[in-house]
Amino acid sequence: MASEKYAVGVDLGGTSIKIGLVTEKGRIIRKDNLDTNAEKGPAAVVNQIKLGIEKILEKNDKKIRGIGIGTPGSVILKKGTVEHPPNFPGWSKVPLGKLIKKEFNMKVRVENDANAAAIGELIFGAGIKMQNFIMITLGTGVGGGIIIDRKIYRGETGAAGEIGHVSVDLNGPECKCGSFGCIEAYAGKNYLIERVIAELKNKRDSKINRLINNDLNLLTPKIIGQAAAMGDKFAKSVIIILGEILGSGLASVINVLDISNIIVGGGISGLGKSLITAIQDSARSRVMIPHKKRVKVIPAKLKNEAGIKGASALVFYRS
Amino acid sequence: MASEKYAVGVDLGGTSIKIGLVTEKGRIIRKDNLDTNAEKGPAAVVNQIKLGIEKILEKNDKKIRGIGIGTPGSVILKKGTVEHPPNFPGWSKVPLGKLIKKEFNMKVRVENDANAAAIGELIFGAGIKMQNFIMITLGTGVGGGIIIDRKIYRGETGAAGEIGHVSVDLNGPECKCGSFGCIEAYAGKNYLIERVIAELKNKRDSKINRLINNDLNLLTPKIIGQAAAMGDKFAKSVIIILGEILGSGLASVINVLDISNIIVGGGISGLGKSLITAIQDSARSRVMIPHKKRVKVIPAKLKNEAGIKGASALVFYRS
Repeated sequence: MASEKYAVGVDLGGTSIKIGLVTEKGRIIRKDNLDTNAEKGPAAVVNQIKLGIEKILEKNDKKIRGIGIGTPGSVILKKGTVEHPPNFPGWSKVPLGKLIKKEFNMKVRVENDANAAAIGELIFGAGIKMQNFIMITLGTGVGGGIIIDRKIYRGETGAAGEIGHVSVDLNGPECKCGSFGCIEAYAGKNYLIERVIAELKNKRDSKINRLINNDLNLLTPKIIGQAAAMGDKFAKSVIIILGEILGSGLASVINVLDISNIIVGGGISGLGKSLITAIQDSARSRVMIPHKKRVKVIPAKLKNEAGIKGASALVFYRS
Repeated sequence: MASEKYAVGVDLGGTSIKIGLVTEKGRIIRKDNLDTNAEKGPAAVVNQIKLGIEKILEKNDKKIRGIGIGTPGSVILKKGTVEHPPNFPGWSKVPLGKLIKKEFNMKVRVENDANAAAIGELIFGAGIKMQNFIMITLGTGVGGGIIIDRKIYRGETGAAGEIGHVSVDLNGPECKCGSFGCIEAYAGKNYLIERVIAELKNKRDSKINRLINNDLNLLTPKIIGQAAAMGDKFAKSVIIILGEILGSGLASVINVLDISNIIVGGGISGLGKSLITAIQDSARSRVMIPHKKRVKVIPAKLKNEAGIKGASALVFYRS
């Protein structure tokens, strides 16, 4: 279609930069992948982003609406300044948006990657028809984004939506944020795998052991999901307990925000539909009475390349 | 001053209705108190409110800007409809605002009492210069209100801001809301007094026992505060633990909302300044790094008649 609109989506990660050319319907028509070179410092990273965008735009004959960048760290919208992204040595404050705009002379929008994921669901995904929702992204970390009246809620400094750092037990396990019992300290991928490995020692008959040929290095959330689907009791209990914890934290957030739609995205949602059900059961049992029937937990719609799509959605989103 | 503006504030409670004539600076120039007659049903309650307002307006020569009503239960702003206020038998949905407007033919605003308390602090109190804050009200229940950009945040159904039902321990004590480990299940006045009474049995040397002449019926939060001020170890530990719990729940809310000012109001804040300090210490130690220095916990400014003042503030507040 001659009239279709396009945007460049840049998913800046600690090890790789994923870049795509995306239609306004969220379809990726071209994509690429570069090393981040984070260890070489901010200038090198910015250079890689420029290179990647140049390559994607090579021989391009489409009308490009702009460039969206999803990044770790917190973002000051003005100038698209990225502050202290974790795992980016030497990067304190970089006006990334301004630098990229100068190079390509088009609209550039920069957002925190968790917020970009929520905006991706809002524009292309499960939130397309929702006025409000809470997005939780289960990966190595547990991120979040809050959509109110179809806008991202950013808070006083752009740091809002840290659902992963809602504590469900003030005396719980220590979280790398310094607090205790945060959702992330249970549901972050490494925390989860570590806990399952510790418990597996006493579960020699769990189907998980066979699925990984007794090689604990092979353990992933997906394997736990597979074992549960095969009826493995222990794997099922891991999912139920995880759902209980996530549902408890989300219930607190629902009571505070009075927003009843929850979208769950990210890698460890590879645990499958039973995790979604467990989260919903727990949240419904714990929210205040008026919310009980309204609470709905659903999986994110953007799966592969959600990062590129979310970043490109920044361009199509009216903030 | 001839030009000063006035509003009627109605604080609707389960047992009494407090009504006042309030200046736009938040000064009460006349007030009254009536039985709610909740047990006689909604029509009787509405009648008492009308009677009270009539009395307050008797021989009035001021220009009245409107009537504000703070009420338990949830409120639909259109028609000022009050739904299911707890402890009001037979009251499902009553268009209270519409009924009062019909009688007095002036602007009438109805809000949930916790939201009205937050708006009171916004217009007359500790939040007068703040863009955003989180209000927590410590009483028999633990209420809350969220101010964003000098507006109350109401959520999808007007039920937002239930800080009292943020859980700090998913396996904690049961709360009357049906969940577990809610802030209210520790800090609600009755829960707190009950817990202190249980522990007092093993603290025969606590100064609390002397202050109440060993009559447990006399135990109040204020007494605990007095004993702590006298250096009583046990009373001090009660306050520290309570601050720890409140700070933990508030830290989760701060991480989600990215709002750093907390205003603490209500009866059991009679525990004194040491509770405020304990809450702030706990919240600061638990929030994510960028918030640590910014978090500020301060006492509410409206003390006596905060209910009347908050209700009248609804009239002066631009929603």
